[in-house]
Amino acid sequence: MEYELLSQLRQQNPVVLNISNFVTVQDVANGLNALGASPIMSQEIKETAAMVDIAQAVQLNLGAFTQTEVAHLRQMGITANQAQRPVVLDPVAVGAIAYRLQVAQQLLQEMHVNIIRGNAGEIAALGGFAWQSQGIDAGQGAGDLIEIAQTTAQRFHCVVILSGATDIVTDGQRVTEIYNGTPMLAVHVGSGDMLSSVTAAFAAVQSEDYYEAARMATLTFGTCGQLVMQHQPDCGPGSFLPAFLDQLYQIQVEELQQMADFQEVRS
Amino acid sequence: MEYELLSQLRQQNPVVLNISNFVTVQDVANGLNALGASPIMSQEIKETAAMVDIAQAVQLNLGAFTQTEVAHLRQMGITANQAQRPVVLDPVAVGAIAYRLQVAQQLLQEMHVNIIRGNAGEIAALGGFAWQSQGIDAGQGAGDLIEIAQTTAQRFHCVVILSGATDIVTDGQRVTEIYNGTPMLAVHVGSGDMLSSVTAAFAAVQSEDYYEAARMATLTFGTCGQLVMQHQPDCGPGSFLPAFLDQLYQIQVEELQQMADFQEVRS
Amino acid sequence: MEYELLSQLRQQNPVVLNISNFVTVQDVANGLNALGASPIMSQEIKETAAMVDIAQAVQLNLGAFTQTEVAHLRQMGITANQAQRPVVLDPVAVGAIAYRLQVAQQLLQEMHVNIIRGNAGEIAALGGFAWQSQGIDAGQGAGDLIEIAQTTAQRFHCVVILSGATDIVTDGQRVTEIYNGTPMLAVHVGSGDMLSSVTAAFAAVQSEDYYEAARMATLTFGTCGQLVMQHQPDCGPGSFLPAFLDQLYQIQVEELQQMADFQEVRS
Repeated sequence: MEYELLSQLRQQNPVVLNISNFVTVQDVANGLNALGASPIMSQEIKETAAMVDIAQAVQLNLGAFTQTEVAHLRQMGITANQAQRPVVLDPVAVGAIAYRLQVAQQLLQEMHVNIIRGNAGEIAALGGFAWQSQGIDAGQGAGDLIEIAQTTAQRFHCVVILSGATDIVTDGQRVTEIYNGTPMLAVHVGSGDMLSSVTAAFAAVQSEDYYEAARMATLTFGTCGQLVMQHQPDCGPGSFLPAFLDQLYQIQVEELQQMADFQEVRS
Repeated sequence: MEYELLSQLRQQNPVVLNISNFVTVQDVANGLNALGASPIMSQEIKETAAMVDIAQAVQLNLGAFTQTEVAHLRQMGITANQAQRPVVLDPVAVGAIAYRLQVAQQLLQEMHVNIIRGNAGEIAALGGFAWQSQGIDAGQGAGDLIEIAQTTAQRFHCVVILSGATDIVTDGQRVTEIYNGTPMLAVHVGSGDMLSSVTAAFAAVQSEDYYEAARMATLTFGTCGQLVMQHQPDCGPGSFLPAFLDQLYQIQVEELQQMADFQEVRS
Repeated sequence: MEYELLSQLRQQNPVVLNISNFVTVQDVANGLNALGASPIMSQEIKETAAMVDIAQAVQLNLGAFTQTEVAHLRQMGITANQAQRPVVLDPVAVGAIAYRLQVAQQLLQEMHVNIIRGNAGEIAALGGFAWQSQGIDAGQGAGDLIEIAQTTAQRFHCVVILSGATDIVTDGQRVTEIYNGTPMLAVHVGSGDMLSSVTAAFAAVQSEDYYEAARMATLTFGTCGQLVMQHQPDCGPGSFLPAFLDQLYQIQVEELQQMADFQEVRS
């Protein structure tokens, strides 16, 4: 695990450009800022080239799903590919809404995405597995989650983060299970969106191996959540967010190393 | 009072679909999630049928008021009617802006709404009463609030929740006054929007009598606010929100029963 | 310093109309409400005249930057000029994106703005100074900040608030440096947007001298931030926001007078 990426992130303060859905956009901005990155958001397609130019990584969140936004997502992704900026995709609710899955598949043909981050329902849908999502939540399904994550990663030649009770990170070959975390992250709406943008921030400082970037993002995020609940065991989902942002701000490499709980399942 | 609806809500985890205004959308999502429902938001009219299909209730918030959004509100409401999903309407600022009142009246002709939730100024405007609203706030007016709520409920054949220092819930005939609450709810922007979506969650699990759903939503919401201020009397409007979300998450049926402070004015 | 403006603001509860960007809009609404003003937001151009009519001040935030929003910003500003409502402009990221600077300059030709509030990078860009902004952050640059603020104020015949470690307020002639504040304000995304709307609230109650309104807004805002960190020195950026909103709600004239730390550099 490349723990030093956290220090590099804070030193480099990368600009992370987001097309972020309107529900969780403020959490995404605050999460990036707390961790040590510099968030910027765009809603106007005419700004795409200028925005990508000043950014070191791009996060595309499919919770933003008007037709205008989909056109913007498309142009942003293609522009980021041309400019060689890492692209993280968060396929919100593609497991629940057929129309979203169809648009996501189309986008994935038109651009190359370096990292996809979603819950089991979303990653399963992209990988072509049967799954019963529940709205924006993962829902229920059968099937081996590692196989689902690997297959999806292989299909799109990218790294996949499958978020859940255990997080799975894979580039199609290598697989790491990360156990740090807390169920409270799933109660707060927007945790996943924050992780996707935090992943983009790590990708900005480790562009040679996005698997390592994705692992560190997931480990840092889960550990911060775990620390909050360790310090305040009675914390509810409302108090969780401010405490979690504080943790993103305060977490140090040494603390990460001590807390880290993961396993390289395949290397 | 059907206290058990709270347990049913948590057991069933209903998907509540919202067209929610961009100011308070994250509070709405977090409030639903904290209570035990599953929020989903939409901004794209093409998704309407698929979204309504996976939802157990629909909340339409008129704070979302671009022409595109009004078209979306219309289609969402009509689709929900056809699919027999309960519809809750929050007529934000119709008491202050004539154009909004006009659009709201038009929408209420085109769809059937099961529950309307607003402040005195908004409910009065829909009922045709004179009132002086102050922007998004209730403002000042003369007139008996029970009469205003009942008349509006009768006019639109629906349940009305008139939020205020005392909340009034009526189906046009039956009337309940609910005294649980705290003035701090009015200081935090978006409390009303949260209550509207929480009402939709209760309507999802009590579709045979929306009056009961509306009463339980209002009682639960007010009691949670009251509990926050009881536990932290010096709480300001910033600390209030996280503590309130915690309460929505933690509140139990027994606590509600003990705290409940209401009167059936007409039955 | 006209400390009594704070009491007047709370007594008059002015309606402040905002075109606010979707990232920070909820903070803006909550900040205004906590302080004692009444926020209202608009996204629909057809509502412009009615909205301006019920408002006592207007805040235009260029973080809202779709073409539709720019058209709306234009009409809102011009309508506010005609109706003699004070206009505060927040030129988000004009220092980083050439397209935004161009649009901002165009808007400033078409309307009169009473107060511009931005960081060094944004104010420098409007004043025609060389500066290296970092996304939405101020970035680095050479040059005397007082000269930059004064030149920009003179160019647009308005008051300028240049936010930074030391805040500078100027009407082109008079200059005040305000030292109250905390670096934590810069870590929380949306602090600047909140200050811009709070400035509009003060302008609503002191329309004869916007320099005084801008000074009091800046002093109140910075002092509230400073008080939070004084009370909770270990506060992170997540806990900061709720505590800061509480302070905006609780701050009294006497406390401001005791804490005030500023200097009239030129009078």
